[in-house]
Amino acid sequence: MDNFGFYLPTRLFFGPGSVKKLARARLPKGRGLIVTGGTSTTRLGYVAKVQDALAEAGHETIVYNKVQPNPTIEGVRECAALCRAEGVSFVVGLGGGSSIDTAKAVAIMATNDGDWWDYIHGGTGGGKRIANDGLPIVAIPTTAGTGTEADPFTVITNGEEKIGGGGEKCFPTISIVDPDFMMTVPPHLTAYQGFDAFFHAAEGYIATCASPISEMFSLKSIELIGRSLATAVHDGGNKQARADVALANTLAGFVETLSSCTGEHAIEHALSAFHPSLPHGAGLIMISKAYWSRFFESSGDKLVAIARALGKTDAQKPEDFIAALADLQKRCNVHELRLSGYGVQKDDLGKYADNAMETMGALFRVDPRPLTREDIIEILAESYR
Amino acid sequence: MDNFGFYLPTRLFFGPGSVKKLARARLPKGRGLIVTGGTSTTRLGYVAKVQDALAEAGHETIVYNKVQPNPTIEGVRECAALCRAEGVSFVVGLGGGSSIDTAKAVAIMATNDGDWWDYIHGGTGGGKRIANDGLPIVAIPTTAGTGTEADPFTVITNGEEKIGGGGEKCFPTISIVDPDFMMTVPPHLTAYQGFDAFFHAAEGYIATCASPISEMFSLKSIELIGRSLATAVHDGGNKQARADVALANTLAGFVETLSSCTGEHAIEHALSAFHPSLPHGAGLIMISKAYWSRFFESSGDKLVAIARALGKTDAQKPEDFIAALADLQKRCNVHELRLSGYGVQKDDLGKYADNAMETMGALFRVDPRPLTREDIIEILAESYR
Repeated sequence: MDNFGFYLPTRLFFGPGSVKKLARARLPKGRGLIVTGGTSTTRLGYVAKVQDALAEAGHETIVYNKVQPNPTIEGVRECAALCRAEGVSFVVGLGGGSSIDTAKAVAIMATNDGDWWDYIHGGTGGGKRIANDGLPIVAIPTTAGTGTEADPFTVITNGEEKIGGGGEKCFPTISIVDPDFMMTVPPHLTAYQGFDAFFHAAEGYIATCASPISEMFSLKSIELIGRSLATAVHDGGNKQARADVALANTLAGFVETLSSCTGEHAIEHALSAFHPSLPHGAGLIMISKAYWSRFFESSGDKLVAIARALGKTDAQKPEDFIAALADLQKRCNVHELRLSGYGVQKDDLGKYADNAMETMGALFRVDPRPLTREDIIEILAESYR
Repeated sequence: MDNFGFYLPTRLFFGPGSVKKLARARLPKGRGLIVTGGTSTTRLGYVAKVQDALAEAGHETIVYNKVQPNPTIEGVRECAALCRAEGVSFVVGLGGGSSIDTAKAVAIMATNDGDWWDYIHGGTGGGKRIANDGLPIVAIPTTAGTGTEADPFTVITNGEEKIGGGGEKCFPTISIVDPDFMMTVPPHLTAYQGFDAFFHAAEGYIATCASPISEMFSLKSIELIGRSLATAVHDGGNKQARADVALANTLAGFVETLSSCTGEHAIEHALSAFHPSLPHGAGLIMISKAYWSRFFESSGDKLVAIARALGKTDAQKPEDFIAALADLQKRCNVHELRLSGYGVQKDDLGKYADNAMETMGALFRVDPRPLTREDIIEILAESYR
């Protein structure tokens, strides 16, 4: 067993109706800023539920509801200016990863000088260290896919640059994972997001930086996905299935914190960077069989363990994992996705490989065996339809 | 799935040599107070290793080395007075549970008025709420048994009263679990402490307040104990076995935090309260078969899961857990302990039952089915040899 660390300071409340926990949460006195998107969280009454619970605790709230799907630095700046002008005491991110990541950045900018991009390491980012603790962050996800409620990371886009940021000061203080807020996610998005969570858990499991604790979170997450993702996709009103997938996603977020994603995520980010209409989870699904087939020798036992956790309890050899993965994709009705359907070009595979290695090269360094540029091109070629 | 919470804010460093992490830990500037016992931690060089690592980070240290095995309120008072007089910035508990629990109480008393007993709820305790955050607490266990490095609890004795205290402000800020510090624990204590950890994990697994996350910690802890406790007992120099048991103990501490011990712990505390020469872990071992046999109907599937995690992979029925437990006891050479050997009196079983229900009655309320006074007496009678 190698040495490892463990640090997960976020206070989590899980379960249907747990938004009400906000009424008794220990947040600093004063007003809260709710950061969210423009439509569904209001229409479905989630914003009102958050406001009601906070009002019960004596907190007024103001709402910033202009977060876009791929949150931008301009959005962070606008929301941070509002946050500073209004002198709020804490920030609530309510929605998908975009709302929560914006809330994280805004909470930091409320107490630190300059601009969020000053604190980004990589690209045109300023590379500064975040000096001060931010305002307390409350994360309330309404999708089960990013795990950002359980990690200290943010992804904010600045023009052509979509770069991860954050660090320990970006852990949510409180995360409320209330599956009641996920009941209306449509089937295809439920599947894409669920597979994103699955790959967070599975990649973190084979990553060279996995620890006994991260492995435990991975297998539990994978078990819940194997048991309930297909049901959540086909029967979105099934509360038990939604709860299982919500928990799987949060556990997979903890895996991202304690271990790391691997090269699969880097390759996919290159594809969706060039083809923004390609949902991240869909891209992962399409390259997964080719990617995972590279690790039969390096990680055979671990692939068998993943297959068993997925429900294929008689798995004996690493190939059985590919069968289990294909089966789950079929059960979730995402087995016929085609890269060509999203504009991915067969002649550009080298370009995608270069982009993956340049922008997220660190992820390849925790792959169980090194992938070369040629390996990446082969993975993409095998995946291409 | 019921609703649940999750909160484990302690930063953990695990592994051989991880004491060196103190040289780069983010502790407040100033001197540290090392709280420890009087003999082995100094003789074996552990105090010096902690001092060296802290010195590398620029911290002077002072040492309080008068902690006794069952730490007393008088010891807490003396150490807290030293802590206040010397104006230290953080407190390090180095040793078994007694040293770490004393350090926790002292860290709180450095920043709160009055006396530790004012903050004890129960018995003659003052029932006050801890108002202020304490000094940062660093926990460095040298035994694998209490799990206090992973929970926010303390056990301090005041005359005849041995009462748990603490609360969220008593979570260690940093815990260093360095199995190198556990290599010389003698076989019988390794076994008693290891079984204490096992029962923290197993009781928390069947407790009615268990959650999917606490269950995951339980099963991993149990798996490590099944794999390595007997080796650690018989071959104390086996580094892998010591590391496995050290991690099992810390995971079981997290289980205590996230779930709860059950009536078994309450019954044992009554025995060792009346018979201080009875080691807590030994007491648990002696009553365990009778205690666990009460839950075949209420918790059959969970007992099978524990048996499988212990290594009895063909377990099918709850009785198989008792067989696995008996086997582990035999492998650890603790299968012939006798309650009569520690002064437990057959005529006093009612007295022990009353004491268990009076002093730790809450633990019986999370048992999977209610145990009556008669049940407890029966458990003790069955266990008596």
